[in-house]
Amino acid sequence: MPVPEPQRPAEARVEPARAVERFAARTAGMTASEIRALFAVASRPEVVSLAGGMPNLAALPLDSLAAEVADLVARDGQVALQYGSAQGIPALREQICEVMALEGISADPNDVVVTVGSQMALDLVTRIFCDPGDVVLAEGPSYVGALGSFAAYQARVVHVAMDAQGLVPDLLRDALRTLAARGVTPKFLYTIPNFHNPAGVTLAVERRREVLAICAEYGVGVLEDNPYGLLGFTGQVYPALRSMDPDVIYLGSFSKTFAAGLRVGWALVPPAVRDRLVLAAESATLCPPTFTQLLVSRYLAAHDWRGQVKTFAEVYRERRDAMIAALETYLPDGSTWNIPDGGFYVWLTVPQGVDTKAMLPRAVTARVAYASGTGFYTDGFGSSQLRLSYCYPTPVRITEGVRRLAGVLEEELDVIRTFGSPAPRPALRPYSSARGPQAPSPDTT
Amino acid sequence: MPVPEPQRPAEARVEPARAVERFAARTAGMTASEIRALFAVASRPEVVSLAGGMPNLAALPLDSLAAEVADLVARDGQVALQYGSAQGIPALREQICEVMALEGISADPNDVVVTVGSQMALDLVTRIFCDPGDVVLAEGPSYVGALGSFAAYQARVVHVAMDAQGLVPDLLRDALRTLAARGVTPKFLYTIPNFHNPAGVTLAVERRREVLAICAEYGVGVLEDNPYGLLGFTGQVYPALRSMDPDVIYLGSFSKTFAAGLRVGWALVPPAVRDRLVLAAESATLCPPTFTQLLVSRYLAAHDWRGQVKTFAEVYRERRDAMIAALETYLPDGSTWNIPDGGFYVWLTVPQGVDTKAMLPRAVTARVAYASGTGFYTDGFGSSQLRLSYCYPTPVRITEGVRRLAGVLEEELDVIRTFGSPAPRPALRPYSSARGPQAPSPDTT
Repeated sequence: MPVPEPQRPAEARVEPARAVERFAARTAGMTASEIRALFAVASRPEVVSLAGGMPNLAALPLDSLAAEVADLVARDGQVALQYGSAQGIPALREQICEVMALEGISADPNDVVVTVGSQMALDLVTRIFCDPGDVVLAEGPSYVGALGSFAAYQARVVHVAMDAQGLVPDLLRDALRTLAARGVTPKFLYTIPNFHNPAGVTLAVERRREVLAICAEYGVGVLEDNPYGLLGFTGQVYPALRSMDPDVIYLGSFSKTFAAGLRVGWALVPPAVRDRLVLAAESATLCPPTFTQLLVSRYLAAHDWRGQVKTFAEVYRERRDAMIAALETYLPDGSTWNIPDGGFYVWLTVPQGVDTKAMLPRAVTARVAYASGTGFYTDGFGSSQLRLSYCYPTPVRITEGVRRLAGVLEEELDVIRTFGSPAPRPALRPYSSARGPQAPSPDTT
Repeated sequence: MPVPEPQRPAEARVEPARAVERFAARTAGMTASEIRALFAVASRPEVVSLAGGMPNLAALPLDSLAAEVADLVARDGQVALQYGSAQGIPALREQICEVMALEGISADPNDVVVTVGSQMALDLVTRIFCDPGDVVLAEGPSYVGALGSFAAYQARVVHVAMDAQGLVPDLLRDALRTLAARGVTPKFLYTIPNFHNPAGVTLAVERRREVLAICAEYGVGVLEDNPYGLLGFTGQVYPALRSMDPDVIYLGSFSKTFAAGLRVGWALVPPAVRDRLVLAAESATLCPPTFTQLLVSRYLAAHDWRGQVKTFAEVYRERRDAMIAALETYLPDGSTWNIPDGGFYVWLTVPQGVDTKAMLPRAVTARVAYASGTGFYTDGFGSSQLRLSYCYPTPVRITEGVRRLAGVLEEELDVIRTFGSPAPRPALRPYSSARGPQAPSPDTT
């Protein structure tokens, strides 16, 4: 009979491993986005990257900006190089209200919180609202960076599908009804109403009040993310959801209308949310960089920033045109896509049997990169879709990139025709056999 | 007999209130720091603020910086204004390794993660290590911003006291033994070894290996926060804990050695931690501002930054001298303080019976502000202490501020002599009756 081992004293129960390897449970949800994993390869000069979302800065007036920033340091250096308030510089918050007024928003600068890009606002809003296991609604597909923040706080995402008019109100209601039957009230609906990333669609104006009414009925907040709203190609500016409902939390950014490398974004929040958001921001970075805030503020005050936004939009419209023309010229039958009227992205559905995630290494070998659709869902969808960005490359490069992509698709289809299609993927609706532009089909709730 | 109310359908259980008011549990721990609440009042020009930790930028060469930043925009604007990598610019990470080499650290730039001030590094390290309820060890008193981040992730703080030589190893061992007896292994020891904020003391070199050995014995990681290390007044640079143990997570910052308003800090982490930290950073801000990183990189490359740090240290030494002289001249018997040999802060213990938190509004009325000691503890201690900052005001203003503070203390003592001391506060050790400089006494484990 074995001698019982003596009880070890409590002190000896200490783990031998250093705490450095004992991560928090939330890190289990942190995985590198597919886009990020691809970044190093796709940034090689010989690859045409249609994968990234880098804005095009070629149109910026660098000489006058250089003079502006020199004057900022020489005159206001003692302020620009010093700590500021956690909420952001008051003058900039006033100017941000002027920017938002273009979309019909009437806001108090006291309710604006300046953040390090709107990504930080997204992260902090999730931080103050989401406990582990909480549910968040988001369009399917949705922005990768938002899905990353939701995962970082262990929130669960339920996707609601879009059609050519954006988020489908009936599907939103269905999702909320299903969740309510389980006793679940989502913390908020995360939505990108204008020139959606990655789907390229815009929420129809007549749907906007309906979406707000449905969320109000179910007691669900709305988080409106609007980095592209001023970058429409038709001259139309859509009214923000926030302009119709002051309880909406609105996220904005200068990354696409001025310069992403300054990392200046903001949240406009109801007063009941503001203090907690400012405290969260203080914990995150103490304060946003004073220097970049003052630079944006001076730029807005001294430059024709509205004209610059129009210039940017014109640059993107030309590139959109180049991409659509190339898609129509080169892509094989069975491919469908939408024609965005603003923003950076085309959402492409590939011919039946092609797996966009599996195809990606072969595409990069053929010197073209894209973002495969699965990265924009949390539930495994998207393997028949991919996102093409037309924001950064020149029209000539875009055309060449689409030509290369078409070649890769033809090879995939050859393989499928020769060896047969891989096992059918369940839960995906049959694709239309159409070739050419059409709206993204709702493919999940 | 009352008719039973019909079962309400699940759907009707929806809360009437908008989700906007349903905050995450972690927000319960978010409270405005005492320092922050004071910020607005203390920044009035008639108030001598000895409360804040704003670095003194008067010595910065603004004209040459203006030329530098103009050249940055004109030549490298397309890079400086664009997104960068989440980990930070490689050239800057190499330069950061050169900075750390001054403290004996040998590091690979691949293990450096650039953050928006070291506050962001602190927040993200807490994010990836701390589950709700986890224990973190920190000196008592400790940095307010760290306590805020620990609270934001619902970590519990156990303070370990310091003496004139910094953190007391025997008390660290006691705390770990006590926790181990309860089956608790802290996630890490958070420590500011050099010119401590707020205590002003430095961890003796001969204690450093002992602290590391104790933590290793108990399987506890070490998080070394070192914003002030190069700002010593004697010329001595202390070896970093990280220089003695590559498992230490080290946080650094350019806020005190160059410019706080750029918000450029960093974490040096073991390879096993790096990828998760980068993912967390990506979720938090996508990437740190490219613009400010390139500006710091150019500054380090083109300017005599070591000479500038010496200039800063000289500025602070003069102010430290002014403050110590004023304390000796004006403060009433029963006050004790330490004489820091670097950094920004003096930690003052007031005469018995005075409550520094209760006294603060009267001090501000008398046009002097300080940070009361309670903000630097999570457990209610510190009401007999306060932090005085000598970093920002001129020596003349410092002298005047201390004179005003002495007047307020005399009035408090008058009241106590007239009406009797308030009820004795339990758990505080008796103060020494000495007047003048001495080390902060250990006042909690």
